[in-house]
Amino acid sequence: MAYTIGLDYGTNSVRCVIVNTKNGDEIGTSVFPYPSGRNGIILDHSDANLARQNPADYILGIEVSVKNAIAVAKKFDKKFSPDKIIGFGVDTTGSTPIPVDRDGTPLSMMPAFKNNPNAMAWLWKDHTSYKEAAQITDLAKKMHPKYLAKCGGTYSSEWFFSKILHCLNVDKKVFDAAYSWVECADYIPGVLVGDTKPENLKCSRCAAGHKAMFNADWGGLPAKTFLNKLNPKLGALRDRLYKKTYSIDTIAGGLSKEWAKKLGLIENIPVAVGAFDAHLGAVGSGVKYGTLVKIIGTSTCDILVGPKKGKLKDIPGICGIVDGSVLPGFWGFEAGQSAVGDIFNWYVDYIQPKGKIEGSHEELTKKAAKLKPAQSGLLALDWNNGNRTILVDQRLTGLLLGQTLHTKPEEIYRALIEATAFGALTIFNRFEEYGVKINEVINCGGIAEKNLMVMQIYADITGREMKVSRSSQSCALGSAIAAAVVAGKKAGGYDDFASAQKAMCGVKKTAYKPIANNNKVYSELYKLYKKLHDAFGIQDSKIVLSDVMKKLLQLKEQANK
Amino acid sequence: MAYTIGLDYGTNSVRCVIVNTKNGDEIGTSVFPYPSGRNGIILDHSDANLARQNPADYILGIEVSVKNAIAVAKKFDKKFSPDKIIGFGVDTTGSTPIPVDRDGTPLSMMPAFKNNPNAMAWLWKDHTSYKEAAQITDLAKKMHPKYLAKCGGTYSSEWFFSKILHCLNVDKKVFDAAYSWVECADYIPGVLVGDTKPENLKCSRCAAGHKAMFNADWGGLPAKTFLNKLNPKLGALRDRLYKKTYSIDTIAGGLSKEWAKKLGLIENIPVAVGAFDAHLGAVGSGVKYGTLVKIIGTSTCDILVGPKKGKLKDIPGICGIVDGSVLPGFWGFEAGQSAVGDIFNWYVDYIQPKGKIEGSHEELTKKAAKLKPAQSGLLALDWNNGNRTILVDQRLTGLLLGQTLHTKPEEIYRALIEATAFGALTIFNRFEEYGVKINEVINCGGIAEKNLMVMQIYADITGREMKVSRSSQSCALGSAIAAAVVAGKKAGGYDDFASAQKAMCGVKKTAYKPIANNNKVYSELYKLYKKLHDAFGIQDSKIVLSDVMKKLLQLKEQANK
Repeated sequence: MAYTIGLDYGTNSVRCVIVNTKNGDEIGTSVFPYPSGRNGIILDHSDANLARQNPADYILGIEVSVKNAIAVAKKFDKKFSPDKIIGFGVDTTGSTPIPVDRDGTPLSMMPAFKNNPNAMAWLWKDHTSYKEAAQITDLAKKMHPKYLAKCGGTYSSEWFFSKILHCLNVDKKVFDAAYSWVECADYIPGVLVGDTKPENLKCSRCAAGHKAMFNADWGGLPAKTFLNKLNPKLGALRDRLYKKTYSIDTIAGGLSKEWAKKLGLIENIPVAVGAFDAHLGAVGSGVKYGTLVKIIGTSTCDILVGPKKGKLKDIPGICGIVDGSVLPGFWGFEAGQSAVGDIFNWYVDYIQPKGKIEGSHEELTKKAAKLKPAQSGLLALDWNNGNRTILVDQRLTGLLLGQTLHTKPEEIYRALIEATAFGALTIFNRFEEYGVKINEVINCGGIAEKNLMVMQIYADITGREMKVSRSSQSCALGSAIAAAVVAGKKAGGYDDFASAQKAMCGVKKTAYKPIANNNKVYSELYKLYKKLHDAFGIQDSKIVLSDVMKKLLQLKEQANK
Repeated sequence: MAYTIGLDYGTNSVRCVIVNTKNGDEIGTSVFPYPSGRNGIILDHSDANLARQNPADYILGIEVSVKNAIAVAKKFDKKFSPDKIIGFGVDTTGSTPIPVDRDGTPLSMMPAFKNNPNAMAWLWKDHTSYKEAAQITDLAKKMHPKYLAKCGGTYSSEWFFSKILHCLNVDKKVFDAAYSWVECADYIPGVLVGDTKPENLKCSRCAAGHKAMFNADWGGLPAKTFLNKLNPKLGALRDRLYKKTYSIDTIAGGLSKEWAKKLGLIENIPVAVGAFDAHLGAVGSGVKYGTLVKIIGTSTCDILVGPKKGKLKDIPGICGIVDGSVLPGFWGFEAGQSAVGDIFNWYVDYIQPKGKIEGSHEELTKKAAKLKPAQSGLLALDWNNGNRTILVDQRLTGLLLGQTLHTKPEEIYRALIEATAFGALTIFNRFEEYGVKINEVINCGGIAEKNLMVMQIYADITGREMKVSRSSQSCALGSAIAAAVVAGKKAGGYDDFASAQKAMCGVKKTAYKPIANNNKVYSELYKLYKKLHDAFGIQDSKIVLSDVMKKLLQLKEQANK
């Protein structure tokens, strides 16, 4: 019997899962909510774009979550003992870069920068750097259009260089004090192996390729000449960033003596190179060629892989196309929606007063589930946090249309859910337009498991069956699978991902099939959604909208017949 | 000492006011909420367009409200006694037609039609007849474009013939049983004088001209040939409708013996011809040439008058231009917004759970008042109940744009208020574009009196000083002024409106002046409002909207600096 550990660093907490490598059983789980800020996020009330995290929370999270998971595993599985743990895998949010010193210690851990958010981890959803993102996009369009082709045509404010450049613009002290910047996904494995020195980290192909324009075609990171044009200090920093990157089948190092002792584990068991949560979530959900995995959470990631043969066409608006970022030996495709669960939470937590039963997710879902497609006459755009795919524009905002004096909260709630499903369909369509076939959709994440209505609406709107990953902890499971692969067959793991996934992943029995009539109505609504989408989202589009309100009313009347 | 009675039939209640003719003092007031339906309105949960009223509520309302007002007046003013009441004036909502028998008795008062909403009064805001409205508009455009020129270019679903034609289409029994249809504004004076026979009613110029295409230029009501084309039964009905119409300086008749006895008043005191609430509200607020009166309630009416010299240009989108509909001897102009207070109420009553302090008008106003123009990044269209002026399209719906994950209820609340102010500005601009000068704006209604924030936003957005009518009951006061004019100087009243208004009307000391900086920001926001307005409201408009979200964010950032 062999076990691996998956550590999953999410937006609000870190989760540790101990997995039986034979069948994927999760025998011990523990969640550690980050203690700093609001739900683990450092906010700035004068700037809604700011979202940071305290790296000290990450370190504390290893100890607490692993120890607790081990304690649970011992109770749950009598055959388990910590010495049967053969490897570690890690996934994190991203791009979540951290300014560090020569030893790789986050600046925020030093007294001089203690409460300075700029010295902390710049959480993926921090959008303070939108001007820098535009600047990088503009310069790349002029100097190196190729840089953008693999990341959807626009460099995002959520990404590595935008954030570093913004720090340079707003807080020179922090920038100058930083020897380098490391992704959270690279930092955590470094902590576990006991060496966070930037030059010693085995950096993630996934993070580098999707967020830092790293590509073998142009020799790794963007050229120094390019970064110099943005700011000579950024050019100089390039020398202190990584030169090589690795897939998750690579060993980052062995577990350090110190951590082995602290956690009661065997020293030197392999720690896999880190990757982003979505990518390992896809692995844990069974991603393979033709299978799209949808990780539905506060935001949503759509992950696909493609075989590496022939020349790959660039797909406009798809944020990332990176060799080996998901599974080694395959192209990894990443698309996503900047807010999904976050939009539902916004509505419940901000617009419906907190703590009232009538305005809860449960109550709104109960009422919204009774509505028929188009019955409310409402249509929304799912852009409360911008649009990642296919418009790649963080500066878009939400829209709700069709309100009358009779519009009810549950109708708005449902319209917001439908909007995210229309957004999902827009992504599916874009992939298929460019020849990336989708034969199967597997969903994972809390919403996919818990909210039947959401899943049925997704099936009805996309016209595809929605399957749900068997594991409730796909990201952590994916990390544990990576751990099993780096441990190898001999130690009780696997020699490749295909066999590891076959043994350790699965889907739930219940799947959601599209209801033909609903799909028909929704396909009419989608035409209107796409009109709004293009009219507000595509520069200088010539879309005429004067028929939208009337067509919505027509559909509403038909639905109410 | 002489007194008059103003009876004001509103959407949810009837109000009686007893006024001292010398100075306009309101010495006795009483409000009678209609007992039927929800807040006095009969609704149909399967059809949000339906809004009817029980005419029996109107009759009961006379007795209860007049008696109570007299009781109050006796207490408040020792010099008062009921025998000093010299006249009655009446205003009502409209177009609110009632199907009646030969005696003018509403069909709903007959056992055969007791609970049939089609046999009741079709309240102004009933929109069931939108298809018939489109049919009338189309036919008029072909056969008699002039018919539409005086009512904004589009015949509304809120109006007389749309409603009657809809009844004919959906409930032949009611249509066939109806000898005629009478406006509520004509019915109530008929009740008071003791003769509701359709051919004996002195019908309102205001109702006929604004809602029934009545105009001396084409011999009164629309031609029989025209109505026949819609439906021969509608053509036949024309013979049983009114032939002549009257201004509010005309006596409808003397108070009947029966009512005089019931109410304790002198028999045969003059009852003025009725008019719509907005028009008499304007009279009670001091409307004169150059003074626009804004009656802000659940919906809003903008009333202006113009001198009858030269040829009057048609003003597109202005719902009504009628000779003598406001003041005898002047053109009466009527514009309006289909929902204003109703939008704020919708937000508080439907979207914010009821009865919670945090979601109340008071609490939202307190928080919203602290926001600066453009600070929320939100922009709304005020079309939750369609758009009366200048688009004349009841089938438009609401829109809210600019939401982020941080948008708060008070920001939405303020955006809705701003939207109604932008709507108001659009109306002002249209009048002035067509040469109808606005030198002064006087507001009346509960919102104008109670919500300082709303009035300041209106001042800031329109760039005009907002004055507030001294009376809280301008409509009822207007009716009482009409009563004083029909009673005449000899009896203790007046011989003309100018002298009656001079004595009986006024404005409050507090007026709201535009704040220059706010006006500047709002003028930028208005450009965006106007873009959305035209893009969604004007057929085949070629407006490009892809810059709207970005410009809103720019203004938001400037506001937050």
